[in-house]
Amino acid sequence: MKPSTATGAGVDTRAVAVVGAGLHRYGKFDELTYHDLAQPAIRGALESAGVAWGDIEAGWCGHTQGGITLGARIFSRLGKTGLSITNVENASASGSYAFRGAWLEVASGQCDVAIALGVDKRSREISPQFVQAGIEALEAEEAKAAGKKKSQSGGRAFRPFSPVAKFAVMAREHMDKYGTTIDQVAQVSVKQHANAALNEYAQYQKPVTLEEVHEARMLVDPLTVLHSCPFGDGAAAVILMSERGIERFGIENPVWVRASISQSQEGGDDLDATTEKAARCAYEASGIGPDEIGMVELHDAFTIEEIVYVESLGLCAPGEGGKLVESGATARDGRVPVNSSGGLLAMGHPFGPTGIGQIAEIFWQLRGEAGERQIPSRPRSGLAHMVGMGGTCIVQVFSL
Amino acid sequence: MKPSTATGAGVDTRAVAVVGAGLHRYGKFDELTYHDLAQPAIRGALESAGVAWGDIEAGWCGHTQGGITLGARIFSRLGKTGLSITNVENASASGSYAFRGAWLEVASGQCDVAIALGVDKRSREISPQFVQAGIEALEAEEAKAAGKKKSQSGGRAFRPFSPVAKFAVMAREHMDKYGTTIDQVAQVSVKQHANAALNEYAQYQKPVTLEEVHEARMLVDPLTVLHSCPFGDGAAAVILMSERGIERFGIENPVWVRASISQSQEGGDDLDATTEKAARCAYEASGIGPDEIGMVELHDAFTIEEIVYVESLGLCAPGEGGKLVESGATARDGRVPVNSSGGLLAMGHPFGPTGIGQIAEIFWQLRGEAGERQIPSRPRSGLAHMVGMGGTCIVQVFSL
Repeated sequence: MKPSTATGAGVDTRAVAVVGAGLHRYGKFDELTYHDLAQPAIRGALESAGVAWGDIEAGWCGHTQGGITLGARIFSRLGKTGLSITNVENASASGSYAFRGAWLEVASGQCDVAIALGVDKRSREISPQFVQAGIEALEAEEAKAAGKKKSQSGGRAFRPFSPVAKFAVMAREHMDKYGTTIDQVAQVSVKQHANAALNEYAQYQKPVTLEEVHEARMLVDPLTVLHSCPFGDGAAAVILMSERGIERFGIENPVWVRASISQSQEGGDDLDATTEKAARCAYEASGIGPDEIGMVELHDAFTIEEIVYVESLGLCAPGEGGKLVESGATARDGRVPVNSSGGLLAMGHPFGPTGIGQIAEIFWQLRGEAGERQIPSRPRSGLAHMVGMGGTCIVQVFSL
Repeated sequence: MKPSTATGAGVDTRAVAVVGAGLHRYGKFDELTYHDLAQPAIRGALESAGVAWGDIEAGWCGHTQGGITLGARIFSRLGKTGLSITNVENASASGSYAFRGAWLEVASGQCDVAIALGVDKRSREISPQFVQAGIEALEAEEAKAAGKKKSQSGGRAFRPFSPVAKFAVMAREHMDKYGTTIDQVAQVSVKQHANAALNEYAQYQKPVTLEEVHEARMLVDPLTVLHSCPFGDGAAAVILMSERGIERFGIENPVWVRASISQSQEGGDDLDATTEKAARCAYEASGIGPDEIGMVELHDAFTIEEIVYVESLGLCAPGEGGKLVESGATARDGRVPVNSSGGLLAMGHPFGPTGIGQIAEIFWQLRGEAGERQIPSRPRSGLAHMVGMGGTCIVQVFSL
């Protein structure tokens, strides 16, 4: 039960564990409000931890488009208890960073019991002004940096924005450089959909075949729509506790946070190099190496990402990601299961909840509470990885 | 040099100090982008700390309407150094909470050098969708809680929303209950404008008379427009360091963070009771009592707030706030100067920067670097207080 340690400063902090998790299914729920989505997730987390709302001392809310003060509005529905409230936005990684904020709060000794909530509605209003402004500004920056003109497709209407093109390039480059096949890339989607079919919280709960992935509507060659995550609504919540909180509430089977490493792109680095650096720090801080990690939940907004990031995370040699997936090593019954939840590709990617849903999956798998989709090897450690638009990257390691 | 201590958990954390501060003037700057506003503030903070951009290990960005990933977009302009990046939104208190996040990051041992940035543009686009959605949802909640119908003035166009009415009620109640006079309330505006006239970063730099406050356009009786803060654009940044960072960079005159207490409304409590609880925790955690606080920067979006909060902060007896202001005790040369910066009323209130601008003011005053508006008593400690829509409240204590 070694406490988490820091990267930059190398200072030991208080030990913190995840002790409860709850989700609202991801999907398209036009009729549900932010409250409707969040409350079942929060209640699920409280129930599984065996604590009451009044026990929570700090709440962090990750979202991208719920409007200002969303955390306060949602938490006050459960009772105004005086808890500390903070809202976090880090694009795709908003939930991961809300978790990290709650972790910092407990790790630094501000409180013993905290909740991290992620909630978003991204199926109906895909790009309201707050989100669109960020995307346009970032695209203009990137275009400027690349010496290009601003995207001609600008304006307020939804359009397939740069990530699709970016990851199509990532796929083509990996295929060219390492001989990775489109079957290997598509296999990621097949695997994730098979996992999601066993996940009651997943947006998609239906397996797909390799042929279906290949023959789906093309987005940007070689990526069809089944290589891409859906837009959706949803919510996820986890409870964090200090050792003292765990003693006080008599918690059994806590899942310890062993490292929470946040970095951003450095120089000309891309997401894979940033992931590699953050993972190296996380392995060092946690004392758990890549060979010991029992399961991984990683950012697979596009299939090619699993192939690239399993290399960056040190789960196989550079260039071997396609073969690793093909071998079945990242399947639920493989050596190192990746995205047993179904991942962003098939469980879904509502932004706010995504990073916290990953941690919920690790929590349940490590405790043997994942039901039908329980990883047979019963992992004793897990790694959660997210990247966010703008170049943020977060790697968090957990263990029993 | 006692380290900050916690409220909930009572655990000592690493000592953290503010070692640099920089601002961009608050005001209406239609022609300036978020970058234009942020860069001078960041450069000012780096220069005053004597560190380079590459030395910063973590950046927290507080804002309400800069669009997603604003922190990453702004920070990357100074160079992609790999720093950890997190965006925070807590309405009026967004900057205060960005500071607190950076403080948690250093206090918990994640790094030795962090920056807290607040930036917002609120003069031109007063309520884009992200902000408006939050306001409308909160008003609906409050109306529901009060058994009233939803505000009939709803819709997307700007309107004087509930805070004006809320604080007008606060003023009338204080006047009825304690015999506080409208002259005493208006005196807050006169004092703040006098202070702001000496502040090169203030939105308003012109003194006003009691008569001008009384005769200004009425918003909601008894509050005229000169009882209310302006909307504006601006930026503020401070650098935070651990003791090890301070040694490494040979920093002189660090301003130590002695407490950072975040709470929200409890039960039927209003902002004054929440402030009182948070302040009590902050005094206990810091070991600095209300009688020892050398200066205060508090949330004065409306004049009456100074009168109410000086009581909540324990600077005078309940009901004596009006007399305290009238006596000159909260003036720049008084016993406990309040809002020597000019406060939200006259320095301005761009949301993102506001809470960090307060801390910059305390930093400069404690170091004797406040120039023309230097508090003659040369305070050795200061308290920063903000509240945010939704019921959040934060009290942070600093000392040499």
